[in-house]
Amino acid sequence: MKGGRADLRIRPRIRVLKGDIVVLGPGKADLLDAIRRFGSIRDAAKALGMSYMRAWKLIRTMNREFREPVVTTLRGGSRHGGTVLTETGKVVFSLYREMEGASLKAILPGWRRLSRRIRPHTPGGGAP
Amino acid sequence: MKGGRADLRIRPRIRVLKGDIVVLGPGKADLLDAIRRFGSIRDAAKALGMSYMRAWKLIRTMNREFREPVVTTLRGGSRHGGTVLTETGKVVFSLYREMEGASLKAILPGWRRLSRRIRPHTPGGGAP
Repeated sequence: MKGGRADLRIRPRIRVLKGDIVVLGPGKADLLDAIRRFGSIRDAAKALGMSYMRAWKLIRTMNREFREPVVTTLRGGSRHGGTVLTETGKVVFSLYREMEGASLKAILPGWRRLSRRIRPHTPGGGAP
Repeated sequence: MKGGRADLRIRPRIRVLKGDIVVLGPGKADLLDAIRRFGSIRDAAKALGMSYMRAWKLIRTMNREFREPVVTTLRGGSRHGGTVLTETGKVVFSLYREMEGASLKAILPGWRRLSRRIRPHTPGGGAP
């Protein structure tokens, strides 16, 4: 189905900006999601194909820009050294996914009308 | 107000994708808007700080991916040589802006809650 109707999709990408700083966007939200699942920055970065340094920089930006840190490292107990979302991190992540869902739902009527104007198959085989 | 609350904003960017091809996105929509206003690919590209070649490639992609071309060059009359949106181009542009508006409206409740979690001023002066 390369180049076919099955490949056709719409994607709303939400970015929260403060001046030039991306406070929150698709990449940072995916990173929060991965930390939530893996409990480790290293494993989260690996799962996203991102360097540890890159993941750490994204977290540093979020921890600085939000009133409370979004991610914290556990100091004791059985998960000592693990990294988890704080309450703020959980709320921020959840609000971001809610906004993505609300956006997608809101654009669906327009998308139905727009998609009918698009060719199902790219002439010449679909090379970009 | 550098780094201040006034700089804080949210931006939904909508992309229509077919495989790896961006059929329509913020850049292409802005280009359609500029062609609509200027009646010329060259002037539209200039206004967007884009090379003529780049504008032409974006138009070529849209003209190929939509069932009908979105842009056409006038062959006669007083605007001979000018470039205008076709009926399809006008509908596509208008649907895109409608979807942007619908998306923004839909995310506002979440955005109100999220923005309260963000610091009004970046600690250390706001360098990215």
